[in-house]
Amino acid sequence: MLPFTKSFEAEKRKALEKLRAAMERGDVDEDIIPLLGKFNALPSYFTTSSCSGRISVMEMPNFGDKVNAVWLGKWHREVSLEEVLGAVRKHRKGQLWFLVRSPILHVGARTLEDALKLLNLAIGAGFKYSCIKSVSERKLIVEIRSTERMDVPLGLNGTLWVDENYLARIVEIANAQLRRFKGKLKRLEEAVTRL
Amino acid sequence: MLPFTKSFEAEKRKALEKLRAAMERGDVDEDIIPLLGKFNALPSYFTTSSCSGRISVMEMPNFGDKVNAVWLGKWHREVSLEEVLGAVRKHRKGQLWFLVRSPILHVGARTLEDALKLLNLAIGAGFKYSCIKSVSERKLIVEIRSTERMDVPLGLNGTLWVDENYLARIVEIANAQLRRFKGKLKRLEEAVTRL
Repeated sequence: MLPFTKSFEAEKRKALEKLRAAMERGDVDEDIIPLLGKFNALPSYFTTSSCSGRISVMEMPNFGDKVNAVWLGKWHREVSLEEVLGAVRKHRKGQLWFLVRSPILHVGARTLEDALKLLNLAIGAGFKYSCIKSVSERKLIVEIRSTERMDVPLGLNGTLWVDENYLARIVEIANAQLRRFKGKLKRLEEAVTRL
Repeated sequence: MLPFTKSFEAEKRKALEKLRAAMERGDVDEDIIPLLGKFNALPSYFTTSSCSGRISVMEMPNFGDKVNAVWLGKWHREVSLEEVLGAVRKHRKGQLWFLVRSPILHVGARTLEDALKLLNLAIGAGFKYSCIKSVSERKLIVEIRSTERMDVPLGLNGTLWVDENYLARIVEIANAQLRRFKGKLKRLEEAVTRL
């Protein structure tokens, strides 16, 4: 075995402090907090970052330029057409996108065996894109991620390319994807209890 | 170390035989063959599956039902609006999607150190979604994948939700994404030469 356990306790302590600070700032998605708590209560795991999955409207000043991207609307729950229209109306410049992102969790594991156990459990709960994200002497990180995703271009420099009917359609599909990945999060929470 | 090396030679032999058969059937994307050759010439790696990245039009009879999904058009190169329109016109039932997928390669590595070396190299070449996909006593697989992706709903049960102008816009964006990931494949090929 690589000497993962060496700094595990120190890394976990740091991660928990960061999590506490983020929760105080309100920067942690509410509906994922119980799951984070369950992971962090286990002796061989800790969470380093997480998103409970989201639907968003994003403006990207230049293609692929995520650094300067601006969220015009972002929701970790089902969304209404009216909310999406409200976000779309704020669009002024660059590319306008409608996005769905699956939940994503990064979980530190004590040993490679612990990481693989979690990886199999996450895949079993429906998170098929899960994998081992990084391995170093200091940290061993499992990424838990699912397949739900939408990337829909909506317009450019203030001009909309689609109509309201189309937005209604994609909102419906996005909400179905969101319901699906929220169900997977529930399944994962139950599975983690059995770890 | 886990005993990865145990069956490495046997697994590599099997993978190369499968690759040869797939190439004879014409099932391997032409433009990725030189890269696969470079990996397979290295003593510590072999490729198990690959796609050079693609733009496609897909019909999904039921939401999320990939098993029964049908490609109405699939291209591993830049595509014209006319080609996409030709595929879209074949749509009859279920959900119609326009998709872009980044290249994806699965590469077996001899040891965890070999896997991590490749992982860092792939991330450096622009494949930011790369990770270790699976670890077992028999196999250690690195997944090489990039961020480019589009998932655009186009219609349902024969009805189109968007017009030709919109299709022209998304074809343009898809082609830009394709040029970008083809550039990354070139960078990866050069990097692998230095492994």
